[in-house]
Amino acid sequence: MRATLMYGAGDVRVETVPNPTLQEPTDAIVRIVAGCICGSDLWPYASMPKSDVGSRKGHEFVGIVEELGTEVTGLAVGDFVIAPFVASDGTCDFCREGLQTSCRHGAHWGGHDDGGQGEFARVPQASGTLVVVPAGFDEELVPSLLSLSDVMSTGYHAAKKARIAPGQSVTVIGDGAVGLCAVLSAKLMGASRIILMGRHAARTDLGREFGATDVVAERGEAGIARVKELTNGDGTHVVLEAVGLKTAIETAIAVVRDGGVISRVGAPQFSEVPLGFREFLRNITLTGGVAPARAYIEELLPLVLDRTIEPGKVFDRTIGLDDVPAGYQAMADREALKVLVRP
Amino acid sequence: MRATLMYGAGDVRVETVPNPTLQEPTDAIVRIVAGCICGSDLWPYASMPKSDVGSRKGHEFVGIVEELGTEVTGLAVGDFVIAPFVASDGTCDFCREGLQTSCRHGAHWGGHDDGGQGEFARVPQASGTLVVVPAGFDEELVPSLLSLSDVMSTGYHAAKKARIAPGQSVTVIGDGAVGLCAVLSAKLMGASRIILMGRHAARTDLGREFGATDVVAERGEAGIARVKELTNGDGTHVVLEAVGLKTAIETAIAVVRDGGVISRVGAPQFSEVPLGFREFLRNITLTGGVAPARAYIEELLPLVLDRTIEPGKVFDRTIGLDDVPAGYQAMADREALKVLVRP
Repeated sequence: MRATLMYGAGDVRVETVPNPTLQEPTDAIVRIVAGCICGSDLWPYASMPKSDVGSRKGHEFVGIVEELGTEVTGLAVGDFVIAPFVASDGTCDFCREGLQTSCRHGAHWGGHDDGGQGEFARVPQASGTLVVVPAGFDEELVPSLLSLSDVMSTGYHAAKKARIAPGQSVTVIGDGAVGLCAVLSAKLMGASRIILMGRHAARTDLGREFGATDVVAERGEAGIARVKELTNGDGTHVVLEAVGLKTAIETAIAVVRDGGVISRVGAPQFSEVPLGFREFLRNITLTGGVAPARAYIEELLPLVLDRTIEPGKVFDRTIGLDDVPAGYQAMADREALKVLVRP
Repeated sequence: MRATLMYGAGDVRVETVPNPTLQEPTDAIVRIVAGCICGSDLWPYASMPKSDVGSRKGHEFVGIVEELGTEVTGLAVGDFVIAPFVASDGTCDFCREGLQTSCRHGAHWGGHDDGGQGEFARVPQASGTLVVVPAGFDEELVPSLLSLSDVMSTGYHAAKKARIAPGQSVTVIGDGAVGLCAVLSAKLMGASRIILMGRHAARTDLGREFGATDVVAERGEAGIARVKELTNGDGTHVVLEAVGLKTAIETAIAVVRDGGVISRVGAPQFSEVPLGFREFLRNITLTGGVAPARAYIEELLPLVLDRTIEPGKVFDRTIGLDDVPAGYQAMADREALKVLVRP
């Protein structure tokens, strides 16, 4: 089969690799209908050291079950399924608590194993990992269902961890796919005011469609001043941080209201957070983390199926497998917001 | 009247100062029945630069209302009252939300204003600040009522911000008065296992009386290993951090379970918290901050009055005003856990 490998910064190749086979009785083989390129794929695309072996890529996909291990339950060959970006057994204490990213038998896509940017994937812990779309395959819904693999579930995680209450004010930092899904999630949870900090008009326009009431294009001190101005100098009850840079977390701290919550879902590109005595006096909470997408797919799936939400709108480009290297470059150049891959 | 002033590190004096008078119609004058020395007073006692003017000290007291401004409501001369460690108007949005430490018209004790380590104090925003003890003065209850001014409310804040659920496991870092009150609070909220990290036997014994199920005397890596050993390698759902040193927050991060909550009430003596990518993957939440004691006094008061809790046990020494300088030294030398001052 054909699959995507990364050999170093800027070096993405689509190659022929062995077709996956069942290795454990808990495995499934899925034929990938759609995968995508993630904002987090851009970090190694910018910095990965050169390698001779290459690393399989992609951690988001929807597909059709082709084959099942003998111990897999709850799935049938032919099922149309969503794969969250981490595999999990569904039975351990962490999974039962909804923190599947800490599953005691969890696994990640890619690297030496199959990724989502290819034709097929072996799915470990298939019973716990895969979610069947009860309505079956629906071409029109592919982008939104695919978004549940990662970006929509990640934006929703930010909002859920912040426990947004109806009527609260929210700032979303970042107009990438996750930030826009965070806007949609804040809206779903009843936020009355949603300030989106981002400077790409096409993206912030989609943010407004998703529920943003205000857009702040300024960054740094000017951006902070603008959010303060919009909130009587107080900042917002909640800040959803969907960037991962230290400047973003500094902005979050500056624009959160006393007693408020910063919920971060941007993978931190820093090791320390400036939450010292001043923030202690303000009773600021920092929460969030990597999203257990599996915990949210069942909750969000009905909203996608009944068209209440359409998070798939974050995909603004669809390509075939051969164009994946160009897709990486388009996202790195900010020419594409999020690229959908149809193998 | 006599009152306590600090002139620099190690330099505490009891002097004659002017009696307080009503300055605003919202003020009250309270005759202090009991005040105390706080663990947080030890930070300036260790580091305050030399000063010619001196800074009034003490931010915790109970007393009798002597005089009331014309706009004060809900209080009468002769009332036995508890003063939380921050004054607040009781009417602004932050006060109504229970975050009186961010009150829009709040005030702090001490400095140029009266403190709690003296004979009388002018209380700003008296209607919002003071809580009347409905049962009136009761000598036996003075220590526990006084603890609601700060240490018990602060320990409770840690537990409340962590939203401890019945059956959860909790580590408390620090066997000072606040740490012990955090143990008591975790017990009140139904924690099934409470591991107290502290190495002063007299204090950890009181911790056991308050509800600690395990005591870990080791510190640093050895302490972390011991807590992990007690929790199948996972750590506890909640960590209440009542020290404020960076080593304590590092320990907290190491002993909290994935998906868990660190709630800090030790005033941070550092500016950055090591919550980077690794902690992001573990979905660790950091909450807590300075405690809005006023928010909790009414909730905890009935439990003190009916003897459900006796947080006043943290006071292991009672002194008169003249002995306050020696009281500071005894606390700094760890000879006394917490010193009660009867002016």
